Amino acid sequence: MHSNNTKVFLYDTTLRDGTQGEGISFSVTAKLELTKRLDAFGVDYIEGGWPGSNPRDMAYFEAVKELDLKHAKVAAFGSTRRANKPVGEDAQIQLLLDAETPVVTIFGKTWLLHVTDVLRTTPEENLAMIKDSVRYLVEQGREVIYDAEHFFDGAKDNLEYAMATLNAAAKGGARYLTLCDTNGGMLVPQLSELASKVVEAFPQCGVGIHCHNDGGLGVALSLAAVDHGATLVQGCLNGYGERTGNANMTSVIPNLALKMKRDLSCSANLAHLRELSVGCDDLANLPMDSKAPWVGKSAFAHKGGVHANAAQKVAISYEHVCPESVGNKQRILLSDMAGGSSVAMKAKQMGFDIEEKSPEMRSFLKLLKEQEFKGYEYENADASFEVLLRRHFHQKADDFFLKNYRVITEVVRETGEIVSEAAVKLRIGDAVYHNVADSSGPVGALDHAMRKCLQESFPILKTVRLVDYKVRILERGMGTEETVQVRILSTDGKDTWWTTGAGANIIEASWEALRDSFLYKLAQC
Amino acid sequence: MHSNNTKVFLYDTTLRDGTQGEGISFSVTAKLELTKRLDAFGVDYIEGGWPGSNPRDMAYFEAVKELDLKHAKVAAFGSTRRANKPVGEDAQIQLLLDAETPVVTIFGKTWLLHVTDVLRTTPEENLAMIKDSVRYLVEQGREVIYDAEHFFDGAKDNLEYAMATLNAAAKGGARYLTLCDTNGGMLVPQLSELASKVVEAFPQCGVGIHCHNDGGLGVALSLAAVDHGATLVQGCLNGYGERTGNANMTSVIPNLALKMKRDLSCSANLAHLRELSVGCDDLANLPMDSKAPWVGKSAFAHKGGVHANAAQKVAISYEHVCPESVGNKQRILLSDMAGGSSVAMKAKQMGFDIEEKSPEMRSFLKLLKEQEFKGYEYENADASFEVLLRRHFHQKADDFFLKNYRVITEVVRETGEIVSEAAVKLRIGDAVYHNVADSSGPVGALDHAMRKCLQESFPILKTVRLVDYKVRILERGMGTEETVQVRILSTDGKDTWWTTGAGANIIEASWEALRDSFLYKLAQC
Repeated sequence: MHSNNTKVFLYDTTLRDGTQGEGISFSVTAKLELTKRLDAFGVDYIEGGWPGSNPRDMAYFEAVKELDLKHAKVAAFGSTRRANKPVGEDAQIQLLLDAETPVVTIFGKTWLLHVTDVLRTTPEENLAMIKDSVRYLVEQGREVIYDAEHFFDGAKDNLEYAMATLNAAAKGGARYLTLCDTNGGMLVPQLSELASKVVEAFPQCGVGIHCHNDGGLGVALSLAAVDHGATLVQGCLNGYGERTGNANMTSVIPNLALKMKRDLSCSANLAHLRELSVGCDDLANLPMDSKAPWVGKSAFAHKGGVHANAAQKVAISYEHVCPESVGNKQRILLSDMAGGSSVAMKAKQMGFDIEEKSPEMRSFLKLLKEQEFKGYEYENADASFEVLLRRHFHQKADDFFLKNYRVITEVVRETGEIVSEAAVKLRIGDAVYHNVADSSGPVGALDHAMRKCLQESFPILKTVRLVDYKVRILERGMGTEETVQVRILSTDGKDTWWTTGAGANIIEASWEALRDSFLYKLAQC
Repeated sequence: MHSNNTKVFLYDTTLRDGTQGEGISFSVTAKLELTKRLDAFGVDYIEGGWPGSNPRDMAYFEAVKELDLKHAKVAAFGSTRRANKPVGEDAQIQLLLDAETPVVTIFGKTWLLHVTDVLRTTPEENLAMIKDSVRYLVEQGREVIYDAEHFFDGAKDNLEYAMATLNAAAKGGARYLTLCDTNGGMLVPQLSELASKVVEAFPQCGVGIHCHNDGGLGVALSLAAVDHGATLVQGCLNGYGERTGNANMTSVIPNLALKMKRDLSCSANLAHLRELSVGCDDLANLPMDSKAPWVGKSAFAHKGGVHANAAQKVAISYEHVCPESVGNKQRILLSDMAGGSSVAMKAKQMGFDIEEKSPEMRSFLKLLKEQEFKGYEYENADASFEVLLRRHFHQKADDFFLKNYRVITEVVRETGEIVSEAAVKLRIGDAVYHNVADSSGPVGALDHAMRKCLQESFPILKTVRLVDYKVRILERGMGTEETVQVRILSTDGKDTWWTTGAGANIIEASWEALRDSFLYKLAQC
């Protein structure tokens, strides 16, 4: 194990290697915004793109010069010069210089198989390509990071040649030699052994690590390298990246800071980690992974029963760190095992002060059991639970009441016509509203007709829209009717909330979930 | 490092600890189905539930006795006896015996903090509780696995007492002592050190490992324990479980088998790993994680550019293993098209002899791409795929054709009336059938009205009934309309088959899935 008082530097490649992931892309504006946020958070290096690989990255490097970054250094990424060509005449190397970044990261070949079969050149020329390219960029005043592509596969194949490639980069003047587990297939012990060898052999350079998650070990491998002397960690926020993603920086950072007690430039900002992670998904227009370690919505969520009970008794029992240390929070979930204590805790989190052993609580638990028997599950529908709680404890009567509705779906194959129409009659106070609307589907039609009835009294509901809709069949006892369970995710552009409905009729269950979504939003105002 | 010729046993707790995850629940039927699949795959132990914690688990243990499992042993999970009470009078221990499983797993307290503050008993009584409970269950003929809850936190706090709890279980006759990183906060080096100590101290027992993913290290920690002598690994398929989930068995298994070359009972079935993983999400009605290591849809997907290019040149360059070894496949993105060869293979399995390179195949691949663009996914809807294939290659014209339908759902709150009515007009040959029916929901009404039209011509359809129904929203490009995807599981009492429909209207998508279900059945006759 290496001494743990050496500072560890973070190299974020969300904007370059991260965008190699399926479904991941950032606009130039989003790239600039994320650069600012990474800088404010305290990341040391930000790899912004590959100049010349696409017009978006060119535009980014042009614009990023204008940002007033406080701490981070922006890096441009590219490859070593082409074979048998002077480095000063290499167009790609010139583009790296044109990016005018303080740092340039270039990758080169470690694995002889790639030298001969992909580059189609000699082992000697590959070494010259590495040394020339690094030296040339250093001479132009750049801090150069050398990424040894396929380092571990190369080293397993021919350790001597792999070390020779690193030596070429070191001789060229590279600040860091980064060992890349390019195909993500390493195990912790083998990677640790090779990382130790490199750290020992090149005391004049820092050693970096660049891992992928193909084996499900991306974070562990990165930490193992640091344990064995690496001082630069490359990775992506939220584990973005090709195939299964790069090492997840959002997990690497708190492990280094909180568990391994390493000194990081961002140590003081750790409580903003969840915010950084959520913001990154938002900029990439991707849904949050609720199970993400450290920062996910479920990361400190406890289901009813033994754990929730014990979590109340001994706070640290089922949480490896204080959720607030990374900007997260504890959540108590409800399930068919829920008792008075977890409901009281949940109610408290929602701002209700209800006695665990009161008669109101007893009658509420009875209601909850009846609802669960009918097929409602509140565990994943916090907003419906809050509507139920609020209604039961008379904190607030419903803002509107249904009188009746009718939904018609009509399909005529010859004309290709498919249309759904809904008529809804609602009472709000003493007034009755009766409206009709159509849409491409029955739930949409119902939603539109409800809004027509509600819009005059509650203009705030205009901000609310449905973003997800899930349906499944629940099994009840043998021979009884099937129960449909519907869940709806709504948003007002800032918050999101899940509501639910259940019953034999999918339209009615959907109506209940829509109703709860609107009631929830109105109760927040 | 321990010698790596010792066999490693797999203990799956998807059905117990897995269901502690937010949004995860299985019906009894789903639990039984997953039990069969885990058994067929070659898992050694299947933890089915906690008898007495809820009615669903009780029903499961009753029913699982009737399954004819080939290899796996089912385990019931529970806790040690209560403090200051004879074990023979403990109701919860009795429920564990009533489950009549060959294996019983009980957890006990390692951490003194929990002994005093949660159990509110003495350190000595806790040791007696562990020993009594294990011994009593062993005397009743059970194989007992002892789960040391919070082992690592307890050992860090008081190593001597932590070892004394394991000793109590060993003296009681436990087959395995499982070390639980209950709150998922361990690091690899520290866990390795403690695991080694236990392995050395208890040569008479096997040592198990039970990790969670709170630090993002669940898989790495499990593998480290095996490296240091553990021979039983607990985990959940797809990393289900409380908070951030248990150690992901779907990653643990291939790492053990392919990377660490360990002997597993399931080694020969590794090519079915993706199938097992996809099926598990399906039974839990959860979307697949496309980025999942080993089994995810993106796990061997390459974006255009350097990697995709090199991946073509040197196949092993950017893939840490052969995708087929775990039942996955390489995908080149942007030119992502189901190849003629796989469709031809599939068609052949269904009894069609179609040339891979024929013009008919080319036009079918084009149709398939169009259908996929519209939101149809055939990967989990074989019967709809077969209907499409059959129709395209003119092996059989459809048996009936829709002219039109209308579905009305009406709800009157005052009378409590909720009813759905469907009118359907179908053509069969030259005859036109026009019928109306009602039901508790719109899809049921449509089903009934269709049957009224079909029953005279196709009496065989009387045997067919709908057993499951799933709906989800697919995201299409920005600004376009949402697409609903419906899947229906049908049975004729012998066989079951999935069909699918997709589009903007949930009723129409459901109709398509119903239509395919009937067409599929008729084609089998």
